Amino acid sequence: MLYDLTVTQFAKMLKNLDAILVKASAFAEAKKVDMSVLLNARLAPDQFDLKKQVQIACDAAKICVAKLTGKDAPVHDDKETTLPELQKRIAETIAFITSVSEQDFAKATETKVTTPRWDGKYLMGHEYAVQHSIPNLYFHTSVAYEILRHNGVDIGKKDYLGTLPFKKD
Amino acid sequence: MLYDLTVTQFAKMLKNLDAILVKASAFAEAKKVDMSVLLNARLAPDQFDLKKQVQIACDAAKICVAKLTGKDAPVHDDKETTLPELQKRIAETIAFITSVSEQDFAKATETKVTTPRWDGKYLMGHEYAVQHSIPNLYFHTSVAYEILRHNGVDIGKKDYLGTLPFKKD
Repeated sequence: MLYDLTVTQFAKMLKNLDAILVKASAFAEAKKVDMSVLLNARLAPDQFDLKKQVQIACDAAKICVAKLTGKDAPVHDDKETTLPELQKRIAETIAFITSVSEQDFAKATETKVTTPRWDGKYLMGHEYAVQHSIPNLYFHTSVAYEILRHNGVDIGKKDYLGTLPFKKD
Repeated sequence: MLYDLTVTQFAKMLKNLDAILVKASAFAEAKKVDMSVLLNARLAPDQFDLKKQVQIACDAAKICVAKLTGKDAPVHDDKETTLPELQKRIAETIAFITSVSEQDFAKATETKVTTPRWDGKYLMGHEYAVQHSIPNLYFHTSVAYEILRHNGVDIGKKDYLGTLPFKKD
């Protein structure tokens, strides 16, 4: 199930984020505003701007999948400043996480996960995914959405959630 | 695992939201601003204000748990306008979802979930939780956080994520 929650759902949310950024680009063009105005927008002076929110959303996804499976995530230098560069980062992140198989998650739940910032402490893989990576991924995609919503881009909950696999008997 | 992702994690996120609202109240008091100014704040003219974001976060949690387990969720009339009223709603939501046991989720994954708005279509319980309720819960708690962050309340990612169960060997 961790595969579903991370690989499948993170890839979906990042695709939704990409589509939201494309809508923002059309909005900027219609308003005759440079897209960098939106990419540099933020909702608090000491909070990250939109482009950094996109970078961190990508990091939340790739680092989670890498740590749970022992695979090497692609390295990004956080220098993206344009929409095409951010889209490339999103695409590379999706390509990496979807390259990992469900079998690669066999030991994910009981893997000990740590980062240099945690000073020797660790979380179990399941805790790391459920209490750290998943809330973080949704946080940064929500804040990215919210920066654009605040700036007048015509997006709604459906853009955030994406398509749902509805069935009918 | 659906129990963990919904009951345990939703209760945690709603407690974090409550604590964030308490910080907002202290901020309002220090600024000599009525708390209703913050509760009525919003980040786009056609988006819900803070109090409604709190109500919907609670609904996302209780409706998900009710639908996955067949239990009756408490009814709320969406008339809360003050912090104590919203805190009561959060507390009642947490009390309901944590009253449901892990065994109550035995058939959750293969339960068909629908709502009147879906016009006869349905999602499987697993899809409903992972692709609808969980992203929604995090969206509304993130937007509530973001409304307060935008208004200058001194909160950070730790307030959103809450305590992590770190271990050390």
